[in-house]
Amino acid sequence: MAKVFLAKGKGLRVESGHPWVFRHEVQKIDGEFEDGQIVDVLNFKGKFVGKGFINSKSQILVRLLTRKNEEINIDFFRKRVQDAWDYRKSIGYTQNCRLIFAEADFLPGLIVDKFGDVLVMQTLSKGVDKFKDKLVEILVGIVNPKAIYERNDARVREIEGLDLRKGFLYGSSPVEVEIEENGIKMIVDIENGQKTGYFLDQKENRVAIRNFVKDKVVLDCFCHTGGFTINAAKFGASKVIGVDISDTAIEQAVKNAKLNGVESKCEFVVANVFDYLNELDDKKEKYDMIILDPPAFAKSIHTLENAKRGYKEINLRAMKILKKGGILVTCSCSHYMKPDLFFEVIKDAAKDAKKTLRLIEYRTQAKDHPYLINYEESLYLKCFIFQVL
Amino acid sequence: MAKVFLAKGKGLRVESGHPWVFRHEVQKIDGEFEDGQIVDVLNFKGKFVGKGFINSKSQILVRLLTRKNEEINIDFFRKRVQDAWDYRKSIGYTQNCRLIFAEADFLPGLIVDKFGDVLVMQTLSKGVDKFKDKLVEILVGIVNPKAIYERNDARVREIEGLDLRKGFLYGSSPVEVEIEENGIKMIVDIENGQKTGYFLDQKENRVAIRNFVKDKVVLDCFCHTGGFTINAAKFGASKVIGVDISDTAIEQAVKNAKLNGVESKCEFVVANVFDYLNELDDKKEKYDMIILDPPAFAKSIHTLENAKRGYKEINLRAMKILKKGGILVTCSCSHYMKPDLFFEVIKDAAKDAKKTLRLIEYRTQAKDHPYLINYEESLYLKCFIFQVL
Repeated sequence: MAKVFLAKGKGLRVESGHPWVFRHEVQKIDGEFEDGQIVDVLNFKGKFVGKGFINSKSQILVRLLTRKNEEINIDFFRKRVQDAWDYRKSIGYTQNCRLIFAEADFLPGLIVDKFGDVLVMQTLSKGVDKFKDKLVEILVGIVNPKAIYERNDARVREIEGLDLRKGFLYGSSPVEVEIEENGIKMIVDIENGQKTGYFLDQKENRVAIRNFVKDKVVLDCFCHTGGFTINAAKFGASKVIGVDISDTAIEQAVKNAKLNGVESKCEFVVANVFDYLNELDDKKEKYDMIILDPPAFAKSIHTLENAKRGYKEINLRAMKILKKGGILVTCSCSHYMKPDLFFEVIKDAAKDAKKTLRLIEYRTQAKDHPYLINYEESLYLKCFIFQVL
Repeated sequence: MAKVFLAKGKGLRVESGHPWVFRHEVQKIDGEFEDGQIVDVLNFKGKFVGKGFINSKSQILVRLLTRKNEEINIDFFRKRVQDAWDYRKSIGYTQNCRLIFAEADFLPGLIVDKFGDVLVMQTLSKGVDKFKDKLVEILVGIVNPKAIYERNDARVREIEGLDLRKGFLYGSSPVEVEIEENGIKMIVDIENGQKTGYFLDQKENRVAIRNFVKDKVVLDCFCHTGGFTINAAKFGASKVIGVDISDTAIEQAVKNAKLNGVESKCEFVVANVFDYLNELDDKKEKYDMIILDPPAFAKSIHTLENAKRGYKEINLRAMKILKKGGILVTCSCSHYMKPDLFFEVIKDAAKDAKKTLRLIEYRTQAKDHPYLINYEESLYLKCFIFQVL
């Protein structure tokens, strides 16, 4: 097994608990290795730090699996998967949940979402991809699903030197899976939906908005397949307009609205949200509540400044078309937009819009997406609920 | 009406929306005034900034009421109270709630808590105290309570040059008021309980812990009258130990446990929590879940360093006596402990305790305590839920 030595003065982050060793933090590598193999990581004094997957193709040279000097075998992975499942069971998430949240479940690069009897899996690092067959076996043994579907068409796999692919790894099922989430039915397209097909991380926030929708006219921006829209409509809103640029997402949202019997309250629009908000402002239309759940504007640290402008822009526009005292639900799912920074961007938008804001709820991702505090990348979703005065 | 001019270079905070003018930020005052009167505030160029209560006895010379050049009369206060009540109604908080949250409801120094038919009121600034009788009249007109009780025995009144007093201002009722909060009954002692008698700000956090208590042995530290304890016991915990240094609080907690039929699951201890946690550690006792809801350790910026030590200490001790994978619910109600700082203190404790933490929920105060974003003092309660590995 090859040994990776951290450079002097560059190992503190990793030694303090962060699971990634960047290439520039490494002094030398003793021994031969192949990408995806397991290596030992040691500090510059030669003290054992942990074991992890190496990949010379990635900036993240090593993804740590453990801090113990233990064997990484099928039992190791079985224990990790069992722990992840036990945690979800302990918080009551057994039907639909993120079953494995990668590094935050101590399984770097592995994502598993559970939609009823069907699991959708992503092996996004070279190392974990090598264990794919074994992980399928372990998941079948522990969770006993009807099917496991691979959504390895995520572009990040290319950085790891992996090909893009999707399909069943185990069993079979229709690729449109109907789930029930807190009293709402949703169709999850595990084959062609975004990411694994459905954003489970917003599940508790979709419930949180129910407190504010009674008799309200709600605008749901970036509505995707209608998660927030349908929750608003079903729990008391008088009318909800869902807007998304993707016509396939909107098609699905229309179906989902029907599935929940709220189609008469819902109106869906295929449009660019930036333009659409502008039009509403020009028309002087006013709403009681606006939801902003955009895709990650900041996909890397290099695009952060542009992202800040984007977030400010949509928030400012939304504030302008809200009625006085109206509710703004504003989200960011980019971990580069740290909570404080996102908060400042909104404060800045409020200043320009000449609005006074009261924060009603400070929310993050659902409990099945735990935030490993030594790995700040695992806190990525912010959902702030404001009253705009 | 006297005019207060902000000093050049010192008015930005106030002009950007903060409602307090500190004495050292003022260049000059034109005209005569009495403490508690309403004055105009202008910037150094003479531009109108707002109107507020002046009090020369306080470091906070002026507490702004409005940014408009409008008359401050009974109609002004009626509108403010109505807005506050409308907001609570809009979020479904009509039975028990913080009805008026001072500056965050644009009524500086005024606190009104609603416990069923009874209102408990605090007029904590000289200016608002002068309007006390009118505010009682307004509250009766809008909310129609059976009684309004004054809890003006808070020491902060002395800084404002006000006496300490308590008693009925309107109507009458027993001083022990039974409330029902999310399925739990609680006795609120409006005469002798802490602050207004009951901490409504934790109401949603008391519900949040229910997700984690099933079949668990729970330790509730600083349990006061048993809010968290009883929620844990009623919603599935196998056993709950409540600890508080106040014997009167524990007496009340015992009564509350009986009132909810969970006395057989609850055990209450009068003890200093610091010592008690140490004893448990010595005895190697382990718990599934620990709740830490201490009083504000940092009551001023000067005591912040001591407070940090205090928070670190109890969190570290709690982490040590939690079982692996156990749940830590840790709170701070001091606004001087900013969320990030509190988070860092806990991270620091985890490092010393050699524990890995996952944040499950990032929570703050209940929705009836909105956080006015230009007035950071109004965000004071943090409630973080961690899994400790």
